[in-house]
Amino acid sequence: MVKNNSIAKKSLKAHKFLNGKIEIVSKAPLKSIDDLSIYYTPGVGAVASYLSSHKKDVRIMTMKRNTVAIVTDGSAVLGLGNIGPEGAIPIMEGKAMIFKEFANINAFPIVLATQDINEIIKTVRYISPIFGGINLEDISAPRCFEIENALQDILDIPVMHDDQHGAAIATLAGLYNALKITKKSLANIKIVIVGAGAAGSGIAELLTAAKAKNILILDSKGIVSRQRTDLNSHKQRLASITNPNNIQGGLDEAVKNADVLIGVSGAGLIQPQHIKIMNTKPIVFAMANPVPEIMPADAKKAGAFIIATGRSDFENQINNSLVFPGVFRGALDNKVKKITTAIKLKAAKNLSMLVSKPTIHHIVPTVFDKRVVKTVAAAIRN
Amino acid sequence: MVKNNSIAKKSLKAHKFLNGKIEIVSKAPLKSIDDLSIYYTPGVGAVASYLSSHKKDVRIMTMKRNTVAIVTDGSAVLGLGNIGPEGAIPIMEGKAMIFKEFANINAFPIVLATQDINEIIKTVRYISPIFGGINLEDISAPRCFEIENALQDILDIPVMHDDQHGAAIATLAGLYNALKITKKSLANIKIVIVGAGAAGSGIAELLTAAKAKNILILDSKGIVSRQRTDLNSHKQRLASITNPNNIQGGLDEAVKNADVLIGVSGAGLIQPQHIKIMNTKPIVFAMANPVPEIMPADAKKAGAFIIATGRSDFENQINNSLVFPGVFRGALDNKVKKITTAIKLKAAKNLSMLVSKPTIHHIVPTVFDKRVVKTVAAAIRN
Repeated sequence: MVKNNSIAKKSLKAHKFLNGKIEIVSKAPLKSIDDLSIYYTPGVGAVASYLSSHKKDVRIMTMKRNTVAIVTDGSAVLGLGNIGPEGAIPIMEGKAMIFKEFANINAFPIVLATQDINEIIKTVRYISPIFGGINLEDISAPRCFEIENALQDILDIPVMHDDQHGAAIATLAGLYNALKITKKSLANIKIVIVGAGAAGSGIAELLTAAKAKNILILDSKGIVSRQRTDLNSHKQRLASITNPNNIQGGLDEAVKNADVLIGVSGAGLIQPQHIKIMNTKPIVFAMANPVPEIMPADAKKAGAFIIATGRSDFENQINNSLVFPGVFRGALDNKVKKITTAIKLKAAKNLSMLVSKPTIHHIVPTVFDKRVVKTVAAAIRN
Repeated sequence: MVKNNSIAKKSLKAHKFLNGKIEIVSKAPLKSIDDLSIYYTPGVGAVASYLSSHKKDVRIMTMKRNTVAIVTDGSAVLGLGNIGPEGAIPIMEGKAMIFKEFANINAFPIVLATQDINEIIKTVRYISPIFGGINLEDISAPRCFEIENALQDILDIPVMHDDQHGAAIATLAGLYNALKITKKSLANIKIVIVGAGAAGSGIAELLTAAKAKNILILDSKGIVSRQRTDLNSHKQRLASITNPNNIQGGLDEAVKNADVLIGVSGAGLIQPQHIKIMNTKPIVFAMANPVPEIMPADAKKAGAFIIATGRSDFENQINNSLVFPGVFRGALDNKVKKITTAIKLKAAKNLSMLVSKPTIHHIVPTVFDKRVVKTVAAAIRN
């Protein structure tokens, strides 16, 4: 487990030392009475009065144009599950660091002391006026779908549950390039997704929109199929867009002759034997964080041809970090009110194109590639 | 009106140029895979997991220890009234600048798209986990009292409605020094407060706790008295602690022989004739922002001996800015859960003591005096 390794120790130490990874600073000096008169009272009274009757200019004269809320209820944090709001703070702060460093966006963590769907929707609505976008994060399925849909309907700023759509866009980008290498096409391959939570659902939806025809998606009970009587409405929707041959069973049945195996579930849920019965040149994306479904070395040994994870410390990092900074940069700059499917497909295509000659070691750009944010942002236009 | 003067023009221009006065930045570099591994995934997983079962350490390993929410519903903004959340943003951002510049506190503006008391209470409760304190701001009376009391009961972090208590502490500090100059004592003077909203109420309460015996407070209908049948429960409370001689009438009646006249109402509500009938060496604090109840030059002409306003551009600025940075600095550092009356009295005394030789031109330190925050913070201990 990560808990005992050296990265974990270094991370705990670094967090103890920093006392918070982000801070809020002033963009202008406040050193004289003149400064105070202009930025605070009495001058600010004129600005307040002006904005109250010119609401569009809030985007010009306040931080709204460049500020995003990262909202979680701590119900589905990394691979850790429902650890609550306090435990989620360091992850939200880390995400805010990435927002700033990569996309120069102000992101503030909102960690909620409620897991009630309606209370979450109301709370985000009430705090929304200062934000130009809402990044929902680490909220468990199927609650996340209702929350995202309701908020996107109510608000006139983009609301994106990153676990669904960030993961989906990054995955599709990586898959485009992996398929170039293996010379296979999305329409003709069999794709297995382990995990029917937020990420799995987002990926299944986006791959379907990208014309994938044969997707199997599994939850903890096995393959989602139209035969199953235990599906909630969200999984019924998944059953309707996946599993064209109505296959039933578990992962052993699902992976037979699969071309692509995508893990968005939890540590250790993919075994070498699963990879061994896949089709030629198996593509394995084991993206659970912090511990992948199968470690890259083990996947390789079992015959995986192209391997990706969600982690910074392995090659081929397929991580939301490639996506969310650019998505919100583009949305804020172009005043996009909703991240549509067409936008997501374009973003994935743009991202994949950054790798001009994909290899098995390099199917996605790194998050440090300066072109990533710009390229993704360029896709975010209504 | 401020709207047309040069400060207003400069302020509008500066806000247009800055596009937001505060920003959120990273406290550590994020330049390598190693950085990402430590501050984000996979390392952060260990921190998240640790904090979920060691909630006290959230104050050590996250921004909570040094972060405050500035919460408003835009219902009582400066002298502008109920202008709503958007108009309030520049003021909240200005306040966040002051928090950072003077007390090195991260303050984030939460401007609410609801003015329902219960919804505000719930919303602040839900978003509270990442904050070490709540600064309520520009919420109208009497709603502000219920909101503050309820939140302080529910939360284990300090909740302070600055319009009440910041104003009260700054006023009492100024008054201590003004009375030293005029050689009068709090117990023997007549004090008139124009405005029975948040600030007026906070001041009446704190002056009473400081042993003032003869306070009259006026709302838009006149002097608050036990005879009046139109008082809500909050004003009934004010009637019970003020007006010992049960005087009725308006400002003309109230100010007769008053030693101190405190305006916390609105532009122009004090006239020269009111000052003319006060006792000897009249003390006039005209603190409405951005436009005082009477301009200092007019007050002086009418015979005011000591004049203060809330504005940065006049001498004797009695403004919350002298108080809130130090109050929250002390509360965060000393893990104070509630700002009690004893704490407020001590803070006012400490603040007043910074002026070793008060003169009519100098009854409070300026906000740029580096000792202010430290001195106020030193009072904030349970």
